[in-house]
This record gives sequence, C-alpha cells and structure tokens, in this order.
Amino acid sequence: MNNKKYALGVDLGGTNIKLGFVSDKGEIISSSMVTTNREGGPQEVISQLKKGISEVLLKEEIKIEGIGIGAAGSVSSKKGTVSNPPNVPGWGVVNLVKIINEEFNLPVYIDNDANVAAIGEMLYGAGKDYNSFALITLGTGVGGGLILNRKIYQGNTGAAGEIGHISIDYNGRLCNCGSKGCVEAYVGNHYLMDIVKEELGKHQDSKILKIINNNTNLLTPKIINEAASVGDKYALQIIERVGFYVGVALSSVSNLLDIDTFIIGGGVSAFGTPLINSIKKTIKKNVLKTLKNRIKVVPAMLKNEAGIVGSSSLVFYNS
Amino acid sequence: MNNKKYALGVDLGGTNIKLGFVSDKGEIISSSMVTTNREGGPQEVISQLKKGISEVLLKEEIKIEGIGIGAAGSVSSKKGTVSNPPNVPGWGVVNLVKIINEEFNLPVYIDNDANVAAIGEMLYGAGKDYNSFALITLGTGVGGGLILNRKIYQGNTGAAGEIGHISIDYNGRLCNCGSKGCVEAYVGNHYLMDIVKEELGKHQDSKILKIINNNTNLLTPKIINEAASVGDKYALQIIERVGFYVGVALSSVSNLLDIDTFIIGGGVSAFGTPLINSIKKTIKKNVLKTLKNRIKVVPAMLKNEAGIVGSSSLVFYNS
Repeated sequence: MNNKKYALGVDLGGTNIKLGFVSDKGEIISSSMVTTNREGGPQEVISQLKKGISEVLLKEEIKIEGIGIGAAGSVSSKKGTVSNPPNVPGWGVVNLVKIINEEFNLPVYIDNDANVAAIGEMLYGAGKDYNSFALITLGTGVGGGLILNRKIYQGNTGAAGEIGHISIDYNGRLCNCGSKGCVEAYVGNHYLMDIVKEELGKHQDSKILKIINNNTNLLTPKIINEAASVGDKYALQIIERVGFYVGVALSSVSNLLDIDTFIIGGGVSAFGTPLINSIKKTIKKNVLKTLKNRIKVVPAMLKNEAGIVGSSSLVFYNS
Repeated sequence: MNNKKYALGVDLGGTNIKLGFVSDKGEIISSSMVTTNREGGPQEVISQLKKGISEVLLKEEIKIEGIGIGAAGSVSSKKGTVSNPPNVPGWGVVNLVKIINEEFNLPVYIDNDANVAAIGEMLYGAGKDYNSFALITLGTGVGGGLILNRKIYQGNTGAAGEIGHISIDYNGRLCNCGSKGCVEAYVGNHYLMDIVKEELGKHQDSKILKIINNNTNLLTPKIINEAASVGDKYALQIIERVGFYVGVALSSVSNLLDIDTFIIGGGVSAFGTPLINSIKKTIKKNVLKTLKNRIKVVPAMLKNEAGIVGSSSLVFYNS
C-alpha cells in the first residue's frame, strides 16, 4: 500500500450507473457499471445503486474514505437530495445521501453532474491552476459549474450554474424551459441536430449527407465532426456557429463574474480545436476591455471518466 | 455620546465629491460636498478629495473608525487603486487608499460605486433580509453589485457585477463597449433617450412632446415619468419595455447564479412601480421553474444618499 487515499465515485446517469475506485490524485483503480433501470421508478433505481456499490465494495479490498455521487437533475448537496431527475417516473424528492449512508455506513456526498465535473477539473484536470473558472458541458443539455475562488458556487438552493439558460436573444428560439433564446436552444444536441436537419436541404453538396447516406436520423455531432475533419465547409460552419453562440453566452458570464477561464466539456465538445477557437474568438471580441487579454478557453481533461472521477472528488473536496 | 460607531463616507463622483458622517446603523449625521474638478486631472481631484475630508474632520468632533470611498470606474478594493475613471484626463492608476491613509492616518477602504451601493443596501437597506441578491443601478450606465452569501463578490480583479454588459441579443444594438446587444445599449440613460427621440415622431399625440415643448433635447427619464404618471400610453410603453430588457438580463443572472432577489436603484429607477412590475413579470416568465415562485424585485432604499452611506459602510463591512 501507499499513503494515497481512496474514494468510491458514482456517476448516476439516466441510462447507466458508473462506479469507480479513485485515488485522491484522480487515478481510477477500477471501474464498473450497472443499468439505471429508471423506468422502474425510484425504488428500482435505488436498488440498482445499492447493488452496484455493494458489488464493488465486495470486490475491492481497498479502504475508502467515502462515497461521492454525481447525479443528473436538481440536486441539493446540503440536504443530500435529488429532486425529479429527468425521465424517472414517480421520483419526487429522494434523500440519496441518507439512504446510501445508512446502507453502507460511510460518509456520502452528492452534487449535480455539472458541479461534480467542475470540482473534478479543479482538483485533477484543466482547472488545476485557476482560482476561478466556469465549466460548460455541451451535451443534450448545456450545463455549467462555477468555481469561484477554488470553491464550487451552489447558489441559494444548489441550482446555480445554468449557463444553458442564459438568453442570447430575447426574441430567439423557444427553449423547452419556456423562455426564448436560451443558448441551449441553439447548441443543445437535439436542438442543434434539428437545425442541421432543416438546413441540410440547402447544402446538398455537404459531405455530411454522404456519410449518413441521406438518412438525417443518423445525424450526430460525431458525424458533423467527421465531415469537418475532411474539410466540409458546411460542417465547419456549424462548428463555428456553435462556438459563436456559446461564446456570446460566456461573454456575459465573463462580464458578470469577472471570470476569464472557461473549460469546455460534454459530448458536443468533441468538435475539438475549431470549436474552442470559435468560442475564444467570440468571447475576446465581446467582453469588456480589461478582460480581453486574459480570456482562456480550454477543453476539459476528464473525458468519459469525468463523472466517476468528479464524483469521487466530492469526498476529498468536502473532507 | 452613545455606543454607536461612526465612519466617513466619501462618494467620489465625476462632478461632485459628497461626504458624510454616518453611523454604523446607516444614519447620516452630517454631509457636505466639494466639486471634483476632474478636468484638472488626478492631482486636482486628489487635492479636492483631501480638502473635502479635512474640512469635515475639522468641523465634526466625532471619533470615526475610518474612511470609506466609493468611486466610479475600475476599482481594486484589494490594491486600493482606481484605474482610469471616466473623463479624468491623465489619471492612469492611482492608489487612493494609500494617499488618503497617509494624509489622515485612518483606515481607508475603497470600492466601485455599484459595489458600495450593494453593501449599503445589504447592511441598511432593501437587502437587509437576504443572503444573496443582485443590485442593479440604472443610470447613464447600467451597473451592478453581487452579494453572494452576505459578501460582495468582486471577481478576479474587482471588476465583477457588470450586469449592463450582459447581451440580450447577439445581433442587437451596438454598445459603446464594442459588443452587441448589451442591456446597457437599450436602457442606459443616453441610449434610452436616443431611442425615445427616434420614436417620438410616431407618437405625436404623446404628452411627452407637450411637456418638453417639442424640444427633444429636454428629454429625461423624469419627463417620461411625468407623462406616464398622467397615463400617457407611449410613456408607459417605454417604462414597460425598459423593464422587459432589464428583466431579460436579470433572468440570465438568476438562472446562472440561483439568485432570486433583485434590488433596483439609479436615476432611471425613478420610473417606480410600473418599472419594478415589468422587471418582475419578465423575470418570472423567463427563469427556470424552480426559481419562478421565489423571484423578488424591490426598489433600492438608499436613494441619493446611497453613495455616502454605502461608502461609509465599507469601514464596518471590512473591520
């Protein structure tokens, strides 16, 4: 053994529950997965969660300091509760911290997936060297976590960081939250694919259509990326535009919070360097003079394992 | 005497320097004013500042705990510096805290005018009962101060709170900061008056034109308010629209920071209840579900004296 400490990180997603033993340096020692079975309602999800944790605790003989859980939806890290996660029927408000703590008699911490990713990036990833930054996760939704002076900023009820619901056009696209012009309504995965589907008619020469054999149901950010990587103009234009929309929202965040560092994660961030460059260019163009030369936009370093590593880091962050 | 404590609050504005003895309950004991003489450059402004402070210190025999300064422009409360305040030739960066401390041998604190107003509202005004809120000052510019968990949030360099430079339309009105769609470019005093001037041609029956005798150079928010108070439709429409634009920007702030309380100050806030109602209606309509029922929008309580009282409060806030 060594003098490292360990924690169990649990990434409670809509489809799968991912679990991992992680050191206090962010190294994954082992990982596993069980299905979430969300259609079975809260009792089933809790049962799967307990099952997953029991199995890894039995398999590994390493002593752990505690369990950290990252969950989708509205999470109160103070109360330990998860409220109405997307697509789990009959959930309501469930105190997962209490349930898991009583079952395993270990310290348990919880936060929402974006905050957990932000804490992970701060401790082990792209945010190590920065006092304050915003993490943006570009996926089905557009989430965010705010690190202010090396602390996660939770807000009054733990709901802070909703970067996706910054409006970039008061008369813009309708968002499923009911508001207009939310940046999520432009770059959230489904919205973005809808926009591309609509526009592809005008871009018959785009390599995207070839790759998907004209079947627009096959459209994914990955496909767009593939087309862009061989120089497809329309694909590159999409990426440029995603960067622009995200950049406009982040310019407002930068001006409001005097934050100069942005870490970009989530599936859509697979657009890579062209996306990062477009975001950076837009922010630098739009922020106040004193911020322009300080703006840094970097990709997240914890990729697929962001959930597990970030969740485990809650244990070390809080203790 | 009593067991109250006192401080000297100094409101360093572009035209006047206002000074006041203020108790730690926010009561103004006495106040005075000298001109800023900004055209004389930094030496002249500093000399006026010293003169104003000397005079009140000589006149009053109350012991004070320190001097608090609220200044326009870019202020670093940590370093004690004011950088390039608007319209003072040759200013550069001046360490006012050091200069005033050396002259009067008293603790000296400084912050920008919006932060100082926010601290004042937190300690003595409309923010007394709230953990977190945003103060918005609607004037020539649109400023802001963020109180998060009973602390002023300064950001990396003290520049946080620039609510006026949240973009509400990525393709909108050009702001003098160089960006597009900043809420200041819609509701900042000069911008707003420009919009009204343009539109008045289409509102020949508006009472505004009667009040100003068709001389649009006389337009002020006060005139619009006068017309609105006797039911002028166009004037009421302007106020409604100002509330809408401000509300859109504050909805983004609310979603981002999980803040539910907004305090509205500054000259344009003289529009009063119709403005407050319009801001509130817009925020409630646009924010995420969990915030809707918590939204509070209230007028600032410290009006003309916000600068003096707020500045004095820096002494008690920091000590």
